[in-house]
Amino acid sequence: MFSTQTVLRVRFYETDKMGFMHHSNYARYYECARTEAIREIGYSYANAEKDGTIMPVVKIESKFIQPVFYDDEVRIITQIKAMPRFGMISFYHEFYNQKNELVHQGTVTLAMITVATNKRECGPAPLMNELQKYFTK
Amino acid sequence: MFSTQTVLRVRFYETDKMGFMHHSNYARYYECARTEAIREIGYSYANAEKDGTIMPVVKIESKFIQPVFYDDEVRIITQIKAMPRFGMISFYHEFYNQKNELVHQGTVTLAMITVATNKRECGPAPLMNELQKYFTK
Amino acid sequence: MFSTQTVLRVRFYETDKMGFMHHSNYARYYECARTEAIREIGYSYANAEKDGTIMPVVKIESKFIQPVFYDDEVRIITQIKAMPRFGMISFYHEFYNQKNELVHQGTVTLAMITVATNKRECGPAPLMNELQKYFTK
Amino acid sequence: MFSTQTVLRVRFYETDKMGFMHHSNYARYYECARTEAIREIGYSYANAEKDGTIMPVVKIESKFIQPVFYDDEVRIITQIKAMPRFGMISFYHEFYNQKNELVHQGTVTLAMITVATNKRECGPAPLMNELQKYFTK
Repeated sequence: MFSTQTVLRVRFYETDKMGFMHHSNYARYYECARTEAIREIGYSYANAEKDGTIMPVVKIESKFIQPVFYDDEVRIITQIKAMPRFGMISFYHEFYNQKNELVHQGTVTLAMITVATNKRECGPAPLMNELQKYFTK
Repeated sequence: MFSTQTVLRVRFYETDKMGFMHHSNYARYYECARTEAIREIGYSYANAEKDGTIMPVVKIESKFIQPVFYDDEVRIITQIKAMPRFGMISFYHEFYNQKNELVHQGTVTLAMITVATNKRECGPAPLMNELQKYFTK
Repeated sequence: MFSTQTVLRVRFYETDKMGFMHHSNYARYYECARTEAIREIGYSYANAEKDGTIMPVVKIESKFIQPVFYDDEVRIITQIKAMPRFGMISFYHEFYNQKNELVHQGTVTLAMITVATNKRECGPAPLMNELQKYFTK
Repeated sequence: MFSTQTVLRVRFYETDKMGFMHHSNYARYYECARTEAIREIGYSYANAEKDGTIMPVVKIESKFIQPVFYDDEVRIITQIKAMPRFGMISFYHEFYNQKNELVHQGTVTLAMITVATNKRECGPAPLMNELQKYFTK
């Protein structure tokens, strides 16, 4: 299993009139955490695009437990629990606030589409090779 | 059952470098559709807040079937399939593109919190009374 | 001179914890108003891109007079005061709230870049031809 | 004079279909840079609000020189060139890309409003006291 951690600080413009971080920003935080996770695996999503793969989101499930607030540091644990299959990759995120309380959970599934063929394929080889290391004893 | 329809046009700033509407905007479109649905029921979410109720999102499930593009008119069917219970209300959304293809599905559940007590309660009476009419033969 | 009007309703996610529409959204409202202005002139910005022209923003000046609030209908007057010259086009926007008070002013200048040459040129001919009509007695 | 530096990495959701960071995000980057500048001065904008001051933006001037792209690290120099007067404070920002080219300039003026009186006043004393140190030989 791959697991990493990203810390993001809630920006003023991300708040709404309830005083919370607006719920639509969690999907954006997943994306930031995902980008950093891929970088830590040893690849860059910017390269994926150059290498001819795009990774559109196909499914999101989000559970909002407690709000987070302006200027809070939010710690996001990001896990890939299984090697991608059928050209689909899933990221599991847990968000913790500064009191170390679990405040949010999200699961995002992306398709790995080869631009040249417009087909769902097995993803960029360099990413898959690096990722495989986390799933081998 | 309550059912209504909202049309939103994809704004340039909502697109991303893949050329699609960025996936984080769907949660924002749910919110717009929800606001219009509540207005059609005969209430205003702006009043809910004045009446002492806030409605934070507690759960979202999203399925992305096809992308939508800049300047597309997106038709959103919004349904409330059951009277709220236990201070929770769910909205079910289907998104159709200009070719009338189903491109996205989303379900959003909100808690209805009375600000004065900070408790999940049965929601603003005027909204609930109006909504009840859709669930009575 | 070309002048038109667009009405946008402030969305919940556009608010911030001060309870106002967050100031970064005005640039987004300019863009919406600009898109509608171009459509009214008889062209579509989506076509500009297909016709090989992109129009990146090069300058913005904004004056914030009064805030606007969730669910407010904001009336935006958009004017083009002169025919574009040197591949630059300027839009002048005035925002009015529901009490008809002037709440915001913004001026946006865009370059019209021919993608094939990566040069600033005179803009898409169909747009320029239609626009010329507003500057001829 | 006060001067500091902030580095922000362009997020995927901040790009648009031209492949650039969308121009509306610069106002959000000013805000992030401003928050960090105030923190470095020895204060927190989150405290300003608790201390009864809000700081709405009253004026923005932006000059877009070159685009920035997904995953670019953008270096923002933020300067306060003069002590605030008449309850107004101005931040001057210069953005540099990874090649160290100046890509953007922005100036933001904010009013410092005492919530209790709804009047523009001289700003939170702890912030002003710390800031004064940068303007004294």
